Amino acid sequence: MSLRTAALRRTPRPSYCSLVRAPAPGPIRAYSTVNQSAGNGFSTRSKALLGCAGTGFAIGLGLEIYKGYLNQSLVKCDMVPAVDFIETKGYPYEPVDAMEKDDPQNPMRVRMATWVRELQDHIVKTIEEIEATSTPNEFSPSPEPAKFLRDAWIRPSGGEGSSCVLAGGRVFEKAGVNISIVHGMLPPQAQRAMLPDHPSLPEPTGTVPYFVTGLSIVMHPRNPHVPTVHLNYRYFELEDPDTGKPKTWWFGGGSDLTPSYLDEEDVKHFHSTLKQACDKHDERYWPDFKSACDKYFYIPHRGESRGVGGFFFDDLTTSSPIHAPPISTLPAPSQDQIFDFVKSASGAFLPAYVPIVYKHRNDPWTEAERRWQQLRRGRYVEFNLVYDRGTKFGLNIPGARVESILMSLPETARWEYMSPLGAEGSGTREAELMEVLKNPKDWV
Amino acid sequence: MSLRTAALRRTPRPSYCSLVRAPAPGPIRAYSTVNQSAGNGFSTRSKALLGCAGTGFAIGLGLEIYKGYLNQSLVKCDMVPAVDFIETKGYPYEPVDAMEKDDPQNPMRVRMATWVRELQDHIVKTIEEIEATSTPNEFSPSPEPAKFLRDAWIRPSGGEGSSCVLAGGRVFEKAGVNISIVHGMLPPQAQRAMLPDHPSLPEPTGTVPYFVTGLSIVMHPRNPHVPTVHLNYRYFELEDPDTGKPKTWWFGGGSDLTPSYLDEEDVKHFHSTLKQACDKHDERYWPDFKSACDKYFYIPHRGESRGVGGFFFDDLTTSSPIHAPPISTLPAPSQDQIFDFVKSASGAFLPAYVPIVYKHRNDPWTEAERRWQQLRRGRYVEFNLVYDRGTKFGLNIPGARVESILMSLPETARWEYMSPLGAEGSGTREAELMEVLKNPKDWV
Repeated sequence: MSLRTAALRRTPRPSYCSLVRAPAPGPIRAYSTVNQSAGNGFSTRSKALLGCAGTGFAIGLGLEIYKGYLNQSLVKCDMVPAVDFIETKGYPYEPVDAMEKDDPQNPMRVRMATWVRELQDHIVKTIEEIEATSTPNEFSPSPEPAKFLRDAWIRPSGGEGSSCVLAGGRVFEKAGVNISIVHGMLPPQAQRAMLPDHPSLPEPTGTVPYFVTGLSIVMHPRNPHVPTVHLNYRYFELEDPDTGKPKTWWFGGGSDLTPSYLDEEDVKHFHSTLKQACDKHDERYWPDFKSACDKYFYIPHRGESRGVGGFFFDDLTTSSPIHAPPISTLPAPSQDQIFDFVKSASGAFLPAYVPIVYKHRNDPWTEAERRWQQLRRGRYVEFNLVYDRGTKFGLNIPGARVESILMSLPETARWEYMSPLGAEGSGTREAELMEVLKNPKDWV
Repeated sequence: MSLRTAALRRTPRPSYCSLVRAPAPGPIRAYSTVNQSAGNGFSTRSKALLGCAGTGFAIGLGLEIYKGYLNQSLVKCDMVPAVDFIETKGYPYEPVDAMEKDDPQNPMRVRMATWVRELQDHIVKTIEEIEATSTPNEFSPSPEPAKFLRDAWIRPSGGEGSSCVLAGGRVFEKAGVNISIVHGMLPPQAQRAMLPDHPSLPEPTGTVPYFVTGLSIVMHPRNPHVPTVHLNYRYFELEDPDTGKPKTWWFGGGSDLTPSYLDEEDVKHFHSTLKQACDKHDERYWPDFKSACDKYFYIPHRGESRGVGGFFFDDLTTSSPIHAPPISTLPAPSQDQIFDFVKSASGAFLPAYVPIVYKHRNDPWTEAERRWQQLRRGRYVEFNLVYDRGTKFGLNIPGARVESILMSLPETARWEYMSPLGAEGSGTREAELMEVLKNPKDWV
């Protein structure tokens, strides 16, 4: 009986959520629950109660964390102290607070900026919760669990951001959760440079105001059996300088998984959780965005994918081709509807990833497995520095915040000449991963 | 009394070289000698005798190595077994054999290909000698010293090469010494792409045959007090398709040092050894090529140099601007004369570097120093993947030999978010290095 089948046979636990909303699909939640129990020793019930008790518990803890941030000489407090530390209301991993705070009366730039802020906060707290409930180990022996450094910054020419980075954790060797909210003036040549990836952009006629806000996450766990994960969501707007209203806008984003060892159940869970988030909004999204992800996270010089993918979209707006294929009879979605999709998709990140972390965080591992993980991380570095559009774009901007851009790189990585690990036909678990990296497949 | 002054007071040892040639400049040789003695416990005399005895000793050893190569399933023998293992004839580190084998009657492409082959062989043997005379340690505990894997390859569309890589040594964590001898047809657009860096190239009129041969070296020692070093030399030729003779040709090359900790004496020795090799041929070379090196090995997004530099030149041919500045009365050098310079400069690589290795290979180091070295290596990876022309060019060629191109990457590297190490004004040895990386200086 698989973990998932076992999970399905359990009685669904009651919802403690005070919001009127549909519960998340059964198998996923159940999968999460079982694996949490297996992973950290909490029963389903005590976990749920802990979630409920979290608010009160966290008021005291949050103040401590807040004082801690103020005392850190290298970082500044981002003014979002963790007062609602485990505020999940019985829906662990789903950004209930963020959903509550979204106000459809606001302009989209404000709504998306609020969303990425709240989601960042929620994800940071969830990861800190994972650290706090994990067993200290030789790499992180302190009885105090690792916390994110919260580093708020201001861009003198317009904008702000907050980089949250955790290093040396019990589970995460390095995890970064960044947001930025930036505005400025975009000259015609910069607009033209964006055209190949953004056909919805009109032919530039002059310098126009732009606004962009986004959330970007990379987490590199220490255990080679816990996959690395990446997420990025962004909203871009060009303003009509005459009216001050948005002239062009689009959303982009996605998330993808990079395991060192293949666990098909994990990949299916990750993909199916994200697929369901897509399908709720438009069934054309998943197939299109899944293959866009395989195409984007490909390392041509190695002839392999960076990981097992997920989904990836860019330039998503009302008039995007995906919303008007020749045979479609659906009306094009409104901006609000596309934003609802973005909220679902980004909100599905933790439900897609955290159960995998709980499942594997206590897996034993060997030095040989760690070496393979380090080699895979080398490929991660190769992709990010050589091909990743965001990284290349960022490094080319004079005065860009390099530490935030390169936060995506792992703490440690490795390169071997003609490494024998993962050789085709060797029948090893390393070769098993390489097979799916060289031939991406459909998991759901 | 500095090491160098002490060295100068010693009696010069007798030359065991059978060739009629000027001995290398006193201070450098003396510096080398003293540091070898200090480093490995051999006296100057026994070191010289070991050099003399090397040939006989190496016949047996060479056969063993040769058999070893044949037994390696992943590598092929490049048909250059190490039969003259320490064939330095009393001039350790200088490529006496390579000089002997150069025949001015041959066309330049043959001369340069012979040169890079011989120099590769000489450098590989010297590094193996360093490994063999170093003390086994926890990273390389085997009583058998590490050897290079010699991996010969053939390019189906024209050309060949040999990658020699050593990993897991007592001194060198990873060292690569590669040569390639490649020919093919160059279409006009590829010629045009080269124009910005090669103004000597004529306006392309059609697809023409090209030839390029080069030697490329990167060595990453384990001890944070032994600097990483890089070398690259290349000869490029475009053929006149009607006559079959060279229409355009140039040399390029250089070498540079990347320490994790600054030892001014080391940098001065490295730079002055290379400067003397330049000055013998043209006193305009060093100042020009030294600043070209500082300019090239610069990481714009970090605002710092990769290392403490050395020298770097490209597109060097008879009609290069450096050979005809307005106030010069010197005749332009012939191709032979430029090749003589290339031989001197590349031949000065080991005399510039090896004494530094001997001086520091037994320096004690801490985990904190190792961490700093790993962070510096992260910068090395950033430079190579984001900016290095050769790497970018190589990765863009479909079917290129990626393992040879990325041989330059260190075995291990590290990235920390907002690392406190090396912070300006901290008065640490890490900050001392950062100061010269941010403000390159003249060392000689």
